[in-house]
Amino acid sequence: MRDEVLEGLREGSIAAPHHRDRQPGVVLVGGGPGDPELMSVAGRKALMEADVVVADRLAPRELLGELPADVELVDVAKLPRGRSAQQEEINRLIVERAVAGKRVVRFKGGDSFVFGRGYEEVIACREAGVPVTVVPGLTSPVAVPAIAGIPVTHRGVTHEFSVVSGHLPPEHPESLVDYDALARMRGTVVLMMAVENAPAIAAALVAGGRAAETPVAVVCDGTMPTERTVLATLGTLAATLREEAVKPPAVIVVGDVVRVAFPDAFPAVLPDRRSADASD
Amino acid sequence: MRDEVLEGLREGSIAAPHHRDRQPGVVLVGGGPGDPELMSVAGRKALMEADVVVADRLAPRELLGELPADVELVDVAKLPRGRSAQQEEINRLIVERAVAGKRVVRFKGGDSFVFGRGYEEVIACREAGVPVTVVPGLTSPVAVPAIAGIPVTHRGVTHEFSVVSGHLPPEHPESLVDYDALARMRGTVVLMMAVENAPAIAAALVAGGRAAETPVAVVCDGTMPTERTVLATLGTLAATLREEAVKPPAVIVVGDVVRVAFPDAFPAVLPDRRSADASD
Repeated sequence: MRDEVLEGLREGSIAAPHHRDRQPGVVLVGGGPGDPELMSVAGRKALMEADVVVADRLAPRELLGELPADVELVDVAKLPRGRSAQQEEINRLIVERAVAGKRVVRFKGGDSFVFGRGYEEVIACREAGVPVTVVPGLTSPVAVPAIAGIPVTHRGVTHEFSVVSGHLPPEHPESLVDYDALARMRGTVVLMMAVENAPAIAAALVAGGRAAETPVAVVCDGTMPTERTVLATLGTLAATLREEAVKPPAVIVVGDVVRVAFPDAFPAVLPDRRSADASD
Repeated sequence: MRDEVLEGLREGSIAAPHHRDRQPGVVLVGGGPGDPELMSVAGRKALMEADVVVADRLAPRELLGELPADVELVDVAKLPRGRSAQQEEINRLIVERAVAGKRVVRFKGGDSFVFGRGYEEVIACREAGVPVTVVPGLTSPVAVPAIAGIPVTHRGVTHEFSVVSGHLPPEHPESLVDYDALARMRGTVVLMMAVENAPAIAAALVAGGRAAETPVAVVCDGTMPTERTVLATLGTLAATLREEAVKPPAVIVVGDVVRVAFPDAFPAVLPDRRSADASD
């Protein structure tokens, strides 16, 4: 069987994709959920070939210790405060260095395009005529639950999952999330940046029709040595977060996949949709 | 500034996480979207340390050519047909080899828990008393759009995205997706395994209230040398898929993030929510 598999491989070979060219310009590298080995091979290669690394607070910073000594390291956590001012400063400094002929790696946690403001940097580079490429990362809303033993999908339980930024409370006029519609979705909801607003979000989901008994897992410091998982329901989430003194960063998983992962904690019987669901 | 960053690193070091133990048992490795370098460092390490590799059709198979010659390679594409029978056979053979003291890598495309049936294999291992660990992968619904230049989120455009399996048509009695609720969500929808059912899904989204002018990008063979992106709207998707003879695998992205990525193709002005949205 081995020979047959290898036979298939000879038919086509992978051309060097655009994100592996070694040119001056900006490379957005998604650093994954925290563990430095949960980063792509392409991303690590780009990082190690950089002239300048501009690193976010939640990027896997241990890897910065492996950079050659002549690499310029810019720590975004030390830039002027205020998110808009900080973003403008980042845009300015990555463009400036790329224009000067440097290869700049913009090093973020997770994936650059999942609430990472990465595309704002793409636009800034394009407007300045600077070549920009993207190396995607392992995204925390999938990878953090996985490492904690929670699948975001499971056959017979859900055919979809939604990833939601909870940085604004549901009633906030700038919130772009329709929590009524979200509550009506039957699948998994993964809340990011939501520790502060989780009580209001859980209440909004229950008000929208989702059962108060819906299981919830809060994964704190996912993939890191300090990782811990706290279990609750939508109805008990506010009290549990308070009692367990949960602090960011945390990934909050809502839905019956949590019951699948922790059947002893949520012993209620799952609706038996599996037998009628052989096709997925 | 470099010294200050490195100072921070000395405070804590990353303990060897559980997924890096080298023990007999089963390791589910997410192989990423296709490009062999878009795979985690931990996943590649697990692959190269395996005694047995059980590989899916959409895993990055080029890497199989790098395995030591004495590794047993099982090609899932060659197992008996019928998804349930095939899954039972996979469960049986990974458990059998792990019980015999082998280190088995179950090698899948994307992430094992995103429509990958990975948790079924976790359950089979647990029931047999076989240690099982997970190395998450770069998931295709995020990584494929990213490589094609499409962010799944963008500030001022969406605070959420939904990932949906389109393997069943909306009216199918076993579908677990509420397309009415999905249509009411304002954010990005990423459809996986949906080429066949995309016309019915697009119609369901429009029937649920999503504008027929909503931009759509279909990324075919994402991250591979044959990658191409086809643009449409929800209203034109069915005709476009037919005219362009789109075949699986494809990732279908629906929403205003497609307009952000291809402003010339979708010149209509975005609702100017950005100025009121400085906090995200």
